[in-house]
Amino acid sequence: MPNSGLSGILTTLLERRPFYRTTLDPGALQDLCRELLAEDSETTGLQLAAAVLDQFANLPQEGRAAFFQYLNTELDIDAQLVEKLAQQYAHDPSIDNFKQLSVAAEPRRQDLFRRLNQAPGATAELVRLRADLLNHLRDDPDLGRTDLDLVHLLRSWFNRGFLVLRPITWDTSASVLERIIAYEAVHEISKWDDLRRRLQPADRKCFAFFHPSMPDDPLIFVEVALTRGVPGSIQDVLSEDRAESTAEEADTAVFYSISNCQAGLAGISFGNSLIKQVVRDLSHELPGLKKFVTLSPIPGLSRWLDTKGQLPEDNTQKALKQLAAHYLLDAKKPDGKPIDPVARFHLGNGAQVHQVHAQADLSDKGLGQSHGVMVNYLYDSSRITQNVEQFAKNDEVAAASAVKTLAKQGAKTRLADAAG
Amino acid sequence: MPNSGLSGILTTLLERRPFYRTTLDPGALQDLCRELLAEDSETTGLQLAAAVLDQFANLPQEGRAAFFQYLNTELDIDAQLVEKLAQQYAHDPSIDNFKQLSVAAEPRRQDLFRRLNQAPGATAELVRLRADLLNHLRDDPDLGRTDLDLVHLLRSWFNRGFLVLRPITWDTSASVLERIIAYEAVHEISKWDDLRRRLQPADRKCFAFFHPSMPDDPLIFVEVALTRGVPGSIQDVLSEDRAESTAEEADTAVFYSISNCQAGLAGISFGNSLIKQVVRDLSHELPGLKKFVTLSPIPGLSRWLDTKGQLPEDNTQKALKQLAAHYLLDAKKPDGKPIDPVARFHLGNGAQVHQVHAQADLSDKGLGQSHGVMVNYLYDSSRITQNVEQFAKNDEVAAASAVKTLAKQGAKTRLADAAG
Amino acid sequence: MPNSGLSGILTTLLERRPFYRTTLDPGALQDLCRELLAEDSETTGLQLAAAVLDQFANLPQEGRAAFFQYLNTELDIDAQLVEKLAQQYAHDPSIDNFKQLSVAAEPRRQDLFRRLNQAPGATAELVRLRADLLNHLRDDPDLGRTDLDLVHLLRSWFNRGFLVLRPITWDTSASVLERIIAYEAVHEISKWDDLRRRLQPADRKCFAFFHPSMPDDPLIFVEVALTRGVPGSIQDVLSEDRAESTAEEADTAVFYSISNCQAGLAGISFGNSLIKQVVRDLSHELPGLKKFVTLSPIPGLSRWLDTKGQLPEDNTQKALKQLAAHYLLDAKKPDGKPIDPVARFHLGNGAQVHQVHAQADLSDKGLGQSHGVMVNYLYDSSRITQNVEQFAKNDEVAAASAVKTLAKQGAKTRLADAAG
Amino acid sequence: MPNSGLSGILTTLLERRPFYRTTLDPGALQDLCRELLAEDSETTGLQLAAAVLDQFANLPQEGRAAFFQYLNTELDIDAQLVEKLAQQYAHDPSIDNFKQLSVAAEPRRQDLFRRLNQAPGATAELVRLRADLLNHLRDDPDLGRTDLDLVHLLRSWFNRGFLVLRPITWDTSASVLERIIAYEAVHEISKWDDLRRRLQPADRKCFAFFHPSMPDDPLIFVEVALTRGVPGSIQDVLSEDRAESTAEEADTAVFYSISNCQAGLAGISFGNSLIKQVVRDLSHELPGLKKFVTLSPIPGLSRWLDTKGQLPEDNTQKALKQLAAHYLLDAKKPDGKPIDPVARFHLGNGAQVHQVHAQADLSDKGLGQSHGVMVNYLYDSSRITQNVEQFAKNDEVAAASAVKTLAKQGAKTRLADAAG
Repeated sequence: MPNSGLSGILTTLLERRPFYRTTLDPGALQDLCRELLAEDSETTGLQLAAAVLDQFANLPQEGRAAFFQYLNTELDIDAQLVEKLAQQYAHDPSIDNFKQLSVAAEPRRQDLFRRLNQAPGATAELVRLRADLLNHLRDDPDLGRTDLDLVHLLRSWFNRGFLVLRPITWDTSASVLERIIAYEAVHEISKWDDLRRRLQPADRKCFAFFHPSMPDDPLIFVEVALTRGVPGSIQDVLSEDRAESTAEEADTAVFYSISNCQAGLAGISFGNSLIKQVVRDLSHELPGLKKFVTLSPIPGLSRWLDTKGQLPEDNTQKALKQLAAHYLLDAKKPDGKPIDPVARFHLGNGAQVHQVHAQADLSDKGLGQSHGVMVNYLYDSSRITQNVEQFAKNDEVAAASAVKTLAKQGAKTRLADAAG
Repeated sequence: MPNSGLSGILTTLLERRPFYRTTLDPGALQDLCRELLAEDSETTGLQLAAAVLDQFANLPQEGRAAFFQYLNTELDIDAQLVEKLAQQYAHDPSIDNFKQLSVAAEPRRQDLFRRLNQAPGATAELVRLRADLLNHLRDDPDLGRTDLDLVHLLRSWFNRGFLVLRPITWDTSASVLERIIAYEAVHEISKWDDLRRRLQPADRKCFAFFHPSMPDDPLIFVEVALTRGVPGSIQDVLSEDRAESTAEEADTAVFYSISNCQAGLAGISFGNSLIKQVVRDLSHELPGLKKFVTLSPIPGLSRWLDTKGQLPEDNTQKALKQLAAHYLLDAKKPDGKPIDPVARFHLGNGAQVHQVHAQADLSDKGLGQSHGVMVNYLYDSSRITQNVEQFAKNDEVAAASAVKTLAKQGAKTRLADAAG
Repeated sequence: MPNSGLSGILTTLLERRPFYRTTLDPGALQDLCRELLAEDSETTGLQLAAAVLDQFANLPQEGRAAFFQYLNTELDIDAQLVEKLAQQYAHDPSIDNFKQLSVAAEPRRQDLFRRLNQAPGATAELVRLRADLLNHLRDDPDLGRTDLDLVHLLRSWFNRGFLVLRPITWDTSASVLERIIAYEAVHEISKWDDLRRRLQPADRKCFAFFHPSMPDDPLIFVEVALTRGVPGSIQDVLSEDRAESTAEEADTAVFYSISNCQAGLAGISFGNSLIKQVVRDLSHELPGLKKFVTLSPIPGLSRWLDTKGQLPEDNTQKALKQLAAHYLLDAKKPDGKPIDPVARFHLGNGAQVHQVHAQADLSDKGLGQSHGVMVNYLYDSSRITQNVEQFAKNDEVAAASAVKTLAKQGAKTRLADAAG
Repeated sequence: MPNSGLSGILTTLLERRPFYRTTLDPGALQDLCRELLAEDSETTGLQLAAAVLDQFANLPQEGRAAFFQYLNTELDIDAQLVEKLAQQYAHDPSIDNFKQLSVAAEPRRQDLFRRLNQAPGATAELVRLRADLLNHLRDDPDLGRTDLDLVHLLRSWFNRGFLVLRPITWDTSASVLERIIAYEAVHEISKWDDLRRRLQPADRKCFAFFHPSMPDDPLIFVEVALTRGVPGSIQDVLSEDRAESTAEEADTAVFYSISNCQAGLAGISFGNSLIKQVVRDLSHELPGLKKFVTLSPIPGLSRWLDTKGQLPEDNTQKALKQLAAHYLLDAKKPDGKPIDPVARFHLGNGAQVHQVHAQADLSDKGLGQSHGVMVNYLYDSSRITQNVEQFAKNDEVAAASAVKTLAKQGAKTRLADAAG
């Protein structure tokens, strides 16, 4: 309990200044922030930081909007001052001039966030605060300035080198596991027995990244099935009565679900690192594994097809596979990257389109978003660097030749007129 | 081993580009930095980051000087651009203008340091890099600009809320303990048996702060003796043949040694937090403890006395105590704070001068720096906040009344003419 | 995984002697036992031990009966040999004669059990074997000889000094927690949310004893509620919408459920040790706790009342409390100890009857076994030793004076004729 | 701290009966033992057990001799009773008769030892008690009866399945490491730096068995060097300035030192299990390892040569290797097993004589016991079972053919007359 030492001191202070807890108006909160920004003493600073976070957590939504507004405008850069100091520094690049410019050019809210982060448990609270900020951002896009500053700091605090990879098993604590249940975003976990089926069998694995200051709260996790051969449907993977096998017999690791856990860390990506490290660790632990693939949804397929026309009535499954391959390889945004967000993620990580499967996700969600089609992306260590470069520089989508053939067929498929 | 996943990938790359390791000229290193700053792919970025750190670690001193020069000048702010963008933002505070200004106003070396910190083990390497930078700073004060940026980031990465307090005992790993031996700065530990005497007895404790990304390397540690009454000399505390007692019998916890471990974190203070948390944890564990004091050196006393004149030949010990009290309470820097650095630290933390002891440190070092006088600072939870404020605002030195009396006597002591 | 080293060796052997797994007839098993008893090599012995346990686990019930029969008769003492060797030792108490007698006087099945216990995971399997033996014992009481031997060894292996007390919390692994759910014998846990309510609140605790060779499988556990005052009903304790409080506010620890987990360890008692250690640990952790009581069922009350007559129709609750007190204090077995098994347990541990509550357990089970009456036993450290002695020597039941008064009233209560 | 709960209760009792600690005469101790054997209450029993162990630990040697005498005679079997009860059981094998016979046939000291073992920390104290007993056994061989009983129980408590294998590294706690330094029996460790050289390099390993009730005190440990090829001398292995390599490069694991730690566990062998498990674990961790050999002393060689005659003056090293091979393969005890104890141990485990090296241990001890010759025993998994059987049944010493050739040459070597 590294932080426990402070709660007592805080209590003392709060008793001395009872308005901290009781007056929940934004004005009082802003006063506290101003005090905190001016405070030299570490001890008092920590008390104030805890008080600010406490007050914020108890503010109603209107109060929060006002508080974000305060951060966005009153704790912004003083652009005229920056201009003046930049002139001064251009003229004389002394350390003192540099320091003045550095301080002025950083919005004061950054300093505030950093001071808040000193308090016990503060990192998790700032992540929640950002989740809240993102909600307000929809109504008030101007708050994007504050968001830029907060993301800048969160990226630094959630530095890749600080993250810890931990296997999630049936021996993991219930307090972590209940979060896995809650956070699973791709293929819902309905209850503890369902979770057990994904963790306990010898041919199932799960890994998560944690930040040391949030040891019970995963940032992102991936669920893995160890199989012989590449499975063609999620039903096969999740089936309750499948024949369990041993990890040693498997030749393929299938990443069938990757879930981000913290809404407040949106835009700070951990998925690529997670996959790469799990590939590496599993390769070492199970030398029999020869292939690392995902079994991924194609969230944008149905929507894209709708814009194209109506599906043919016969040969639907075959046509669907062709159209899905065409979509994944050829449907691009104006910037040249694929329309499909999951494709963008894996291709950007250096994976390649490996296989396309029809009737692979028969859940309502799967049928709705992609007519049940799923795709495997292959992580082939020997080609990742090359794929990354060619995708980054030339928008080149790496794919197995069979998929390329499918895509060509898909490109020729005549869809009935949408309005038809 | 959260980072192990990357070393293999890196190896691959290094094999592909063998010049990474072999060409140790600063130019090649700068090229790598430029590549890293331009890199979009996380995978390649991590490889480049590792390569930069590896090259730097193998550079000779001249090469490092050139590299620091490069960071300081070529990766500095473009002040004219900042000026222009500040104008633009003053005129139109759009998010885009804000973003441009923010990016421009941050020296590119900050971005470089952040990218470097992604690599496995990088945080410790950046701490070492700063230790090196501080050495070069003596010859080239202009590097202070780069140092400001690096400290700014280190302060964020070594955020108080990320630190973990761990007790250091005879059950701690040898790899940590050998660092405790090496880092002890106040009262040297000569060998393992000496260390054991400070850790194993029931009336001895030791605590250290660790950062999660440097789990074997303490940042700061404090050694504590549990005693009945306040000990008047360090010889009593460290004596080999003292009578050991139980922790439960003690009424006083004596912080007799506090050592910072990382030269590269100079200026980023952990001592205050460490003391406060140890006070809190020990209070909880051992309710019999009524007093928390230090047994501290007075490093500036001899030097200060030398400027005043010669010590009287008789009554030396009594006079020394009076003069020491006078020095601690009254000898101030131009800014009004005490001359003595240890006094500044503890008084700034809210402690007060409790007792002064002559013949309390008879080691060469102790006799040299303070004629053997030591001082107890008292951490009294009920008065810390008040002391902090009065010291910060009015430069008021809190002290026991007996010490105040001594100081008054010391102020009247006539010293023989220094030249005499 | 201390035992993993053996599975590979075993695999080798099993491949060489494939009949080990396939021939599941008791004769083959007996052959294996004979081989094991004769084996000098540790390596081969471990292989044989694993094979015996494996075969036994796969035997159908008839085969097991035959196997137990084999243990009971063929691996029994050779009484004539013992007689001869005892004579010889009486005549010449040499070491060699002692050794011969010792070996002969111990049934060979004890040696077999010890050799079996060397195999990886064997201890848990022998516990299961004994659970099975107890089942067969009902039909074949003569197996009691084998049971005596097995209990003798289990008592040695489950030596009090080897057991480890671990808190069970919501941070405990799911694999342990699902066993807690399964093993709870007193107040059923219906699902994970129900378990969470007993573990996660700050005023709830749970502790279990574990044996190092069965680290995921508790031997016994106790559930504790921290309260202000002694609660009068289990409904209060388990209520879903009760007001949660902090551990520090509590003055009373209530042991409201104690469950033995291993049927195969019946007759080997851990409950007394568990309670004593939890009392000690909680006292240390929470100095505010002044009272340690159980909230216990009275499983024999209804049955005993049935033999006495019919309950009065009015004043039932008052009468029930009096009769319950009378039952607990005065209803004795021929040996002078209380009829009620829970009372025998707690009184034998040195507790005393503290309070009796009507309408305290309104579950079907509670109403059935004791008309809803429950009792608190008080563990008062200052009186435990004395209570133990007086209960052991004089069958004296320690009780609060109010309970004694109740019991006297109960003794006078006229029950309607049972046949009435 | 599973046992901490009892110390408080014990303290209470000890305060009540102060003679426990002060009267250190064997008579008082025997009274305590009688009380303990008669005690029904677990609580009081634990107090008495702790008191017995405490008194014993404080007894002077004469007192201990008397105490052992008491155990050996007064707590022995009543042979006449056993005779009677055996007759009775032969006549009527009822459970009750069985029980009576079982109880009578077990010396009461076994029951005493078991009761003592319940106390906190008792297992380690009983191990020390046996070490003491072994010392007294030299003067009083009759105590061998008591020793047989104690070994019988220790073997049960130190059951192979309870032991835990832990790697010993430079990250291991100092409290364990200082015991490694103290216990190393084969190649002395002079100080911490010496230990570090055996633990920290990537091509060095160490493993130890622990019992859960003695978590800081190893039972046995083995030191391993990972090498390319089989090293021919211990100097090569321990050299301070050898070139360190990585574990992955090694093809051979060399077990160069195996030390038993607990004198009180003499005769209870853990070495075979330890080697087998380390072979298995290292094979799994480092698939590049192809050979597992020891680098072993030949403690009986010099003594045996002395009985044969004088070594030739020229060609000594060659002759020594031949004679050593001859000694290892052909010098047998009357029972057909090798004279050399280390050879007996490894050959009994299924190893084979692999190579013999002259000038392989130039320390005083090495030159003294074997003229500097050492031997590698090879653990070849595919041949262990076969070797064990042939050694057990036919006294066949497995050896490489080159060693067999050497042995034949050694058998022909003419030694000068011993009386020379």
